[in-house]
Amino acid sequence: MKLTDIYWDYKPDINKIEKEIELNIDANHPILQEASSHLLKAGGKRIRPVFVLLSAQFGEYNIEEIKNIGVALEMIHMASLVHDDVVDDADLRRGKKTIKSKWDNRVAMYTGDYIFAKAVEIATYYDTPDIHKILSHALVEMCIGEVEQIRDQYDWNQNLRMYFRRIKRKTALLIAISCQLGAIASGAPEAHVRALSRFGYNVGMAFQITDDILDFVGTEKELGKPAGSDLLQGNITLPALYAMCRCDDVKGRIIHHLDENVMDKKEMGETISLIKDTGAIDFSKNIADRYLMKSIEALNQLPDSKAKTALQKIANYIGDRKF
Amino acid sequence: MKLTDIYWDYKPDINKIEKEIELNIDANHPILQEASSHLLKAGGKRIRPVFVLLSAQFGEYNIEEIKNIGVALEMIHMASLVHDDVVDDADLRRGKKTIKSKWDNRVAMYTGDYIFAKAVEIATYYDTPDIHKILSHALVEMCIGEVEQIRDQYDWNQNLRMYFRRIKRKTALLIAISCQLGAIASGAPEAHVRALSRFGYNVGMAFQITDDILDFVGTEKELGKPAGSDLLQGNITLPALYAMCRCDDVKGRIIHHLDENVMDKKEMGETISLIKDTGAIDFSKNIADRYLMKSIEALNQLPDSKAKTALQKIANYIGDRKF
Repeated sequence: MKLTDIYWDYKPDINKIEKEIELNIDANHPILQEASSHLLKAGGKRIRPVFVLLSAQFGEYNIEEIKNIGVALEMIHMASLVHDDVVDDADLRRGKKTIKSKWDNRVAMYTGDYIFAKAVEIATYYDTPDIHKILSHALVEMCIGEVEQIRDQYDWNQNLRMYFRRIKRKTALLIAISCQLGAIASGAPEAHVRALSRFGYNVGMAFQITDDILDFVGTEKELGKPAGSDLLQGNITLPALYAMCRCDDVKGRIIHHLDENVMDKKEMGETISLIKDTGAIDFSKNIADRYLMKSIEALNQLPDSKAKTALQKIANYIGDRKF
Repeated sequence: MKLTDIYWDYKPDINKIEKEIELNIDANHPILQEASSHLLKAGGKRIRPVFVLLSAQFGEYNIEEIKNIGVALEMIHMASLVHDDVVDDADLRRGKKTIKSKWDNRVAMYTGDYIFAKAVEIATYYDTPDIHKILSHALVEMCIGEVEQIRDQYDWNQNLRMYFRRIKRKTALLIAISCQLGAIASGAPEAHVRALSRFGYNVGMAFQITDDILDFVGTEKELGKPAGSDLLQGNITLPALYAMCRCDDVKGRIIHHLDENVMDKKEMGETISLIKDTGAIDFSKNIADRYLMKSIEALNQLPDSKAKTALQKIANYIGDRKF
């Protein structure tokens, strides 16, 4: 089953959100327009708008009233991707050239700033103070997460707690507020808002851990980038952290790589094999599953509905996804 | 007369805003904290908070109610300086090392993002939807201005209209909304809000033009950077635009420099002399004066008060300032 099959019913509304993003970015400024629509065409799962729409089903669903939440959150996600590309020196994202490699770092930075500011402007469609407070607080946390990622890069002495805090800020929070704000904008009852936010947080954690696992087990074709990219860039994720604890040989290799930055493709292949041999993948999958279980528990607080079933399916899909 | 003499009465309230900025940035994250407080210590005229406070005098002045406008706007200004430094490859700002040169581009980009997000969060103190709409719209325009500046860099074929639109977005808008939002947050009458916004816009234009003049007539010691820096970085400002129209020799030199990027200190000195010989400085001062006159006209719509006198003095100060 593909992710799009799960939210097939909402495809027209997702398209409406995509169209709206396009309109908002088309600011009659050739550079911004080209840079942004380039990013838009690169696609993406639009998982945040999907969560907005499904969560809004627990209140009064009216696409015109909730679409701007989806537009703002997807644009914030896009802005963070553009800034990540500046930092990571990434030349490909989802197999397409990144804004940074097609233009330059300066254009990429200001395109990110522009999309970010525009997203905040779109959110002012809503007069509800809570929406602005939740959104801006999440933005602040995301930025702290980015700085933490730089701080922790190449630091082989970091612990699991630092990893979990980092992925919470980097990924889980934005997914949590997609659910939370979708529910608030549709006027869902407070208890449902809370349950959906908890669902989103736990799904988001599982989503990022799965991403981090796939970076070790996926092929270059599936990932759109070489396997082991995270480690090559000095980002130490859950499987590597676990393997370093379990096996001194792996630890030695990783420390040597991080200190000297010398690992080539062949050595990375060997290191990935060694990491797998420690059981790091199963361990990490297990943790992801625990977050998924918690997300399902959160859903149990909600009345049965088609939207609830779809959210359950998405949680299961994230647990099983291969790329 | 120094600028601080004009707003001496408000010094305690300015200090309160500075203190608040410090508290907001001290996020218990060593990198962010060090990077940001570094910027804070570099000082600056705090001209935006001054405009917020003076404009708030036309409503119910209560520092606790308006201070967050000043904090948010000064932080947005700081964030934009941090991102400008990434782009300009600037190693000194006001004689102090920039965040970028002390750490690296990535830390600078995310520090800017963080300060920016935090400013938006601080503005959510206000429930007034108009405040968010005005603020976020100005942010979007500022970002477009930054991208325009990149587009227009090294483009000797640009016209005056492009220059004025760029400085409006880059500088005048943020000063205009400092006045506008200060007045709104204090509940000033709508006609006063409009007059103050117009005052801020015109003062902001004059302020930037004066800055661009000083880049040609100031000494390295006064400016904290070498004279002719704008041109060296490919930024063509009003005096250069005028001189290029008036004198083919200047035009040839500037085009040659922009195309080949080869001007050394001695050649820059000669070019600056030639630019001055065309009357470009007087022409530019004249334009700045016209904006200042319009700003005084806007003030004439307002009832007489100490705040109005202070705003007039600041406008005059900007016209006369030497650095």
